[in-house]
Amino acid sequence: MSMIKVPSAEARLKSRDDLSQCKNVIVKLGSAIITREDEKGVALGRLAALVEQIAEIHRSGRDCILVTSGAVAFGKQILTSQANMVQSLEQSFGKKAGGATGGTIDPRACSAAGQGGLIALYDSMFNQYGIQTAQVLVTNRDFQSAATVENLRTTLNQLHAMRVVPIINENDAVSAPAFDGADVAGVISVTDNDSLAASVAVHIGADLLILMTDVDGIYNKAPSEGGQRLEYYTPTTEQIEFGAGSSVGRGGMESKVDAAGWAFRKGVAVMVANGFEDKCLHKLINGENIGTFFTANAPDASSTKEQAQACRTGSRKLQLLEPEQRAEIITTLADMLIARQDAIFAANDKDIEIAAKSNLDKQLLGRLKLTPGKIATLSEGLRQIAEDSKSLLGRKIKATQVADDLSLEQITVPLGVLLVIFESRPDVLPQVAALAIASGNGLLLKGGKEAKHSNKILHSIVEEALELHAPKETVSLVETRDEIAELVKLGKEIDLIIPRGGNSLVQSIQSQAKGIPVMGHADGICHVYVDKDADMEKAVEIVFDSKCDYPSACNAMETLLIHQDLVGTPTYDAVIKKLRSADVKINIGPKLNEQLTIGGNPVDSFSIEYGDLECAIEVVGDMEEAIDHIHTHGSSHTEVIITEDGASAKHFLNSVDSACVFHNASSRFADGFRFGLGAEVGISTGRIHARGPVGVEGLLTTKWRMAGDGHTVEDFATGARTYVHESLPLK
Amino acid sequence: MSMIKVPSAEARLKSRDDLSQCKNVIVKLGSAIITREDEKGVALGRLAALVEQIAEIHRSGRDCILVTSGAVAFGKQILTSQANMVQSLEQSFGKKAGGATGGTIDPRACSAAGQGGLIALYDSMFNQYGIQTAQVLVTNRDFQSAATVENLRTTLNQLHAMRVVPIINENDAVSAPAFDGADVAGVISVTDNDSLAASVAVHIGADLLILMTDVDGIYNKAPSEGGQRLEYYTPTTEQIEFGAGSSVGRGGMESKVDAAGWAFRKGVAVMVANGFEDKCLHKLINGENIGTFFTANAPDASSTKEQAQACRTGSRKLQLLEPEQRAEIITTLADMLIARQDAIFAANDKDIEIAAKSNLDKQLLGRLKLTPGKIATLSEGLRQIAEDSKSLLGRKIKATQVADDLSLEQITVPLGVLLVIFESRPDVLPQVAALAIASGNGLLLKGGKEAKHSNKILHSIVEEALELHAPKETVSLVETRDEIAELVKLGKEIDLIIPRGGNSLVQSIQSQAKGIPVMGHADGICHVYVDKDADMEKAVEIVFDSKCDYPSACNAMETLLIHQDLVGTPTYDAVIKKLRSADVKINIGPKLNEQLTIGGNPVDSFSIEYGDLECAIEVVGDMEEAIDHIHTHGSSHTEVIITEDGASAKHFLNSVDSACVFHNASSRFADGFRFGLGAEVGISTGRIHARGPVGVEGLLTTKWRMAGDGHTVEDFATGARTYVHESLPLK
Repeated sequence: MSMIKVPSAEARLKSRDDLSQCKNVIVKLGSAIITREDEKGVALGRLAALVEQIAEIHRSGRDCILVTSGAVAFGKQILTSQANMVQSLEQSFGKKAGGATGGTIDPRACSAAGQGGLIALYDSMFNQYGIQTAQVLVTNRDFQSAATVENLRTTLNQLHAMRVVPIINENDAVSAPAFDGADVAGVISVTDNDSLAASVAVHIGADLLILMTDVDGIYNKAPSEGGQRLEYYTPTTEQIEFGAGSSVGRGGMESKVDAAGWAFRKGVAVMVANGFEDKCLHKLINGENIGTFFTANAPDASSTKEQAQACRTGSRKLQLLEPEQRAEIITTLADMLIARQDAIFAANDKDIEIAAKSNLDKQLLGRLKLTPGKIATLSEGLRQIAEDSKSLLGRKIKATQVADDLSLEQITVPLGVLLVIFESRPDVLPQVAALAIASGNGLLLKGGKEAKHSNKILHSIVEEALELHAPKETVSLVETRDEIAELVKLGKEIDLIIPRGGNSLVQSIQSQAKGIPVMGHADGICHVYVDKDADMEKAVEIVFDSKCDYPSACNAMETLLIHQDLVGTPTYDAVIKKLRSADVKINIGPKLNEQLTIGGNPVDSFSIEYGDLECAIEVVGDMEEAIDHIHTHGSSHTEVIITEDGASAKHFLNSVDSACVFHNASSRFADGFRFGLGAEVGISTGRIHARGPVGVEGLLTTKWRMAGDGHTVEDFATGARTYVHESLPLK
Repeated sequence: MSMIKVPSAEARLKSRDDLSQCKNVIVKLGSAIITREDEKGVALGRLAALVEQIAEIHRSGRDCILVTSGAVAFGKQILTSQANMVQSLEQSFGKKAGGATGGTIDPRACSAAGQGGLIALYDSMFNQYGIQTAQVLVTNRDFQSAATVENLRTTLNQLHAMRVVPIINENDAVSAPAFDGADVAGVISVTDNDSLAASVAVHIGADLLILMTDVDGIYNKAPSEGGQRLEYYTPTTEQIEFGAGSSVGRGGMESKVDAAGWAFRKGVAVMVANGFEDKCLHKLINGENIGTFFTANAPDASSTKEQAQACRTGSRKLQLLEPEQRAEIITTLADMLIARQDAIFAANDKDIEIAAKSNLDKQLLGRLKLTPGKIATLSEGLRQIAEDSKSLLGRKIKATQVADDLSLEQITVPLGVLLVIFESRPDVLPQVAALAIASGNGLLLKGGKEAKHSNKILHSIVEEALELHAPKETVSLVETRDEIAELVKLGKEIDLIIPRGGNSLVQSIQSQAKGIPVMGHADGICHVYVDKDADMEKAVEIVFDSKCDYPSACNAMETLLIHQDLVGTPTYDAVIKKLRSADVKINIGPKLNEQLTIGGNPVDSFSIEYGDLECAIEVVGDMEEAIDHIHTHGSSHTEVIITEDGASAKHFLNSVDSACVFHNASSRFADGFRFGLGAEVGISTGRIHARGPVGVEGLLTTKWRMAGDGHTVEDFATGARTYVHESLPLK
């Protein structure tokens, strides 16, 4: 009895990356999205946000059809008021007008009463984007006749040709009640709007069907039980457990999966997604990893959350190893980098080739390129990390005899799971992996896509080395399309984020990563203050080195503060002359400018990190003014005083509230290697956990171990035992 | 020519606290709120959110009038399409139909074209809350005649009597252009909707006028220049500088201030607030500190941001003192608490009296009440803090000879500015203040309002003690209505938040304080694992102490894990019997339940913190299962193993990834005092900065001090100098 021909082609849009090519989109808004939480009307704000996004899709030239619920909710309120009024009239006049007012109101009556208002609302809303809408009501029976389906198809095509957005709803007034629909002629029953939307999508040959609901997608277990949102899904309902969390409930989800699966098998790409998510439609059409996407493609990566959890498990195994075993993993890695360098260069060449085609900036290309020299240095560095790692974990920080036979130790342990986000340099990967392994931490790595092939091979080598003594999942490469915004939501799974890259990367991570600590510094506005008692030669050399040794480094000088008494002296002249000799562009502060006979280029702001052969110069009346200037405009990174007066130096070093304060030394010394910390994990201008240059110690935390012999606190309360709290030697 | 009588009473609603009593509210939605960012229509989402809040106000029984902009924006799109069509017709037929299509379209024409659509949109939206609306268009001239004003007033009163929400707009079609309105007869000109709203508010005797715009209020300087939102404002425009940030611009703000000031002088409470803020109307009617509130009351407190900045300045002075000076402040405070106790008790009695009237829970009342005993203990504790403080700051953590004449030290310094949020116990205030002073930190205190009088006097005593050597602003009490949500926005001003109170307080702060670290623990789900090799007596005593010593403490046992081999043995029986003897309610885990002949009460979840004489019990096959259970269900606080097997204990202590891991000792030892750390700042289950019980050391960070003699990094690059990196003794 199969009267209807449906297209049976495979879905044209096979992956999330394809979704932006969609041309004909059906968006179904379920009642969970449209109805207010109090169930007494339509949720206007959400609707407005979705209309805005549908308008955006429409305006991008795509054809959109909206399948909507909500008429029942819209009408319920109207009919309830009406029923109350009728009832009160009946009471007044002592007679009974009808029969409907006593019990509950039929949803179909509500729908009829609400339909007009709902469409008017949509129409006003879409008008605001210059878009005309059209109302199309259909019933179950309409899909049983090829002729009616053809009529519907023609209508919708006509509307699309005129750039009108059709708004489709079931014609509830003449429909059977929702629970009474059977599968007719191979077409799923149109008893809910999911099926309705699926039918329409199949019959007009839409390429994308979006089912909007109020959960993030389809889960293999209820989210409250730690279920996993299914990213790639082969549609059979058996694999799915539906839990609490959705107002739709198990039944609603099953119908959604049935409808989605049916449309998918008929060649439509299908997405089930959360309409509560900000800019949901925009994101999913742009391929972001939200919602559950129906595809025949097999999953090729575990979710980032699962990866992070495996990192934690790995970290717990790693820290139980002997220090020599961790060191052995790292030295093995160092050996393998040398032994496998041909394969590494081959992968790297692929990245270089792609980058060259896309006109990547020369400097970036340089960072991306791996050379035998870089690999040798890297391998050597790894051996040093292995050597230094042996006394890292389980080191006593504090030991206390609390009472007789009750002792307490505070020892170093790994932080847990680190997320390191790095840009083009692939050599960062093995180095960071080695630091994580040395410190017993799990590691999630998110590299730049321009280094994709290089990162992949380097990571596979790290995995191989890890397997010597630990699970390879301990260091994991994030390869999904998950954006940083997704990763930073994993607050429970990630203990620390370390961005390794330019200021803009760090700033972006810091602003996104609410809730997970970020180790880094967004700005490096370092000052050199030349005191009145400065030695001329030291001033010249330190100022020059601070600015010119590596001008784009975060520890380079940005502002030079000069004591009033020096202006016009040989020291002042010599300092300026030396900077000019290196073509440093000098911006003059307002106070200094007043004193110059010929003014220079004025500073725009004292809070600029020039990152180039450029700096600001200002004069200060005394050291206090210099300190105030630094506190007002600085970034608490590194500040230098040049003076021969020990008391002044001491006061400056005590008063200036920055991570690094130097006397008669270049600001460029603010660096983990120069400080003797070994490999540098980062430089922190934050005040919590680590401050200034941070070595591998920054990847550690502590735990407290206590050993007793049946001790209870009650014994101390009763006086049976007493606290001694004696510090013990740390060996 | 003053034809119109306006009420001249003082505003009935004099403070933010009064606003919830408002009965007749005018809400004016400016075009900055209503118009989309692309200026091509109405911002539906914002409008919907505001309609929802106005509906809420209406439903609470208050009369609402909406004064709206937006018709021009609504009509612009319609007329632009129309104009394009006419133009294309003209081109087709070669004749000119009118004159308007060539240039820009008159805003009044746009308004006329948009008015109907805008009202229809409002009507559909309000209908969704069962609310009828009515359209009222007025012009400038309508306010010049007493008769028309009276007509308007009658109309609005009639509408209110029928519970209809009037929507008022200027009748632009017959109005003069906006720039041509003069002040007529003492009534401000109705040339913009701010003035229109103010006029309506005054003439119908509304008690609250809300002017919604797109900035947070009125500033004394542009926000971008660090301006301060004016909380209390005496309305003259001279005190105001208008800066960038608002699409309204300087002119719009001036008209707003003029209109607001005029209505204020006529007895209407006026608020200028940001319609972009979530639940803005709801918040301001409930007295939250958003927007600028017009009032004659003089400001009585500096803003919290200013307070925090003064704390930072104070902290910098405090850390420059000699350790003895900081100690002296604290001992002085200790003395003053004793000397002033009568005044303290008098203030405390006021709090107790108010609390008793409001039927405060007995336990809370107990915490609120100050006694001579509490003051004496507090004073004694402060002396100990003073004593311990002397070696806290400037302590060397690391010292390195970097090269010849180049040395490096890492020393302890204060964190900066702390925000401590505490509940009913006023004795927390001097204790926390002493810890902050001891560690050189600035301190913002936010206490519970039930302890208002006690906190005030205790804080004034702290200020007096501080003035001995430091600015009194170093420790500051937040007395404004600023809610936690406001405080946690001060990310630049506050370095660490420490909530001192119950779990719900800590959880709430942790979820709100995105970006500022919070030291604390939301959960304490501690486990005791009784191993197969446990000593019976130790097991009985430790389990009993861990659960019953103080059941509501965070370090009390919530789950008891018992090795399989012990089930049914005398040890097992003795442990259970002892718990039962204290009426501990026992919840049985599923595995144990299977083994019991008579099952008990099953556990709901292993992640419950009972905080009472109640716990869960489960059986585990071996120690690994116990460790897995703890990692799955625990909160990483404190876990105990009871065993006589040293190897098992060692493995448990190494494997369990919690802040505290104990062998044969009660979980109740997880406490700063019992650990010998002195006063406890908190217990952290976080892994960053501090972990486990935290003493005053947790309020410190470090800085790096380097002393050279003209050293540059170039000298090392050229080989003129070499790094030695030799560790130096710390003395």
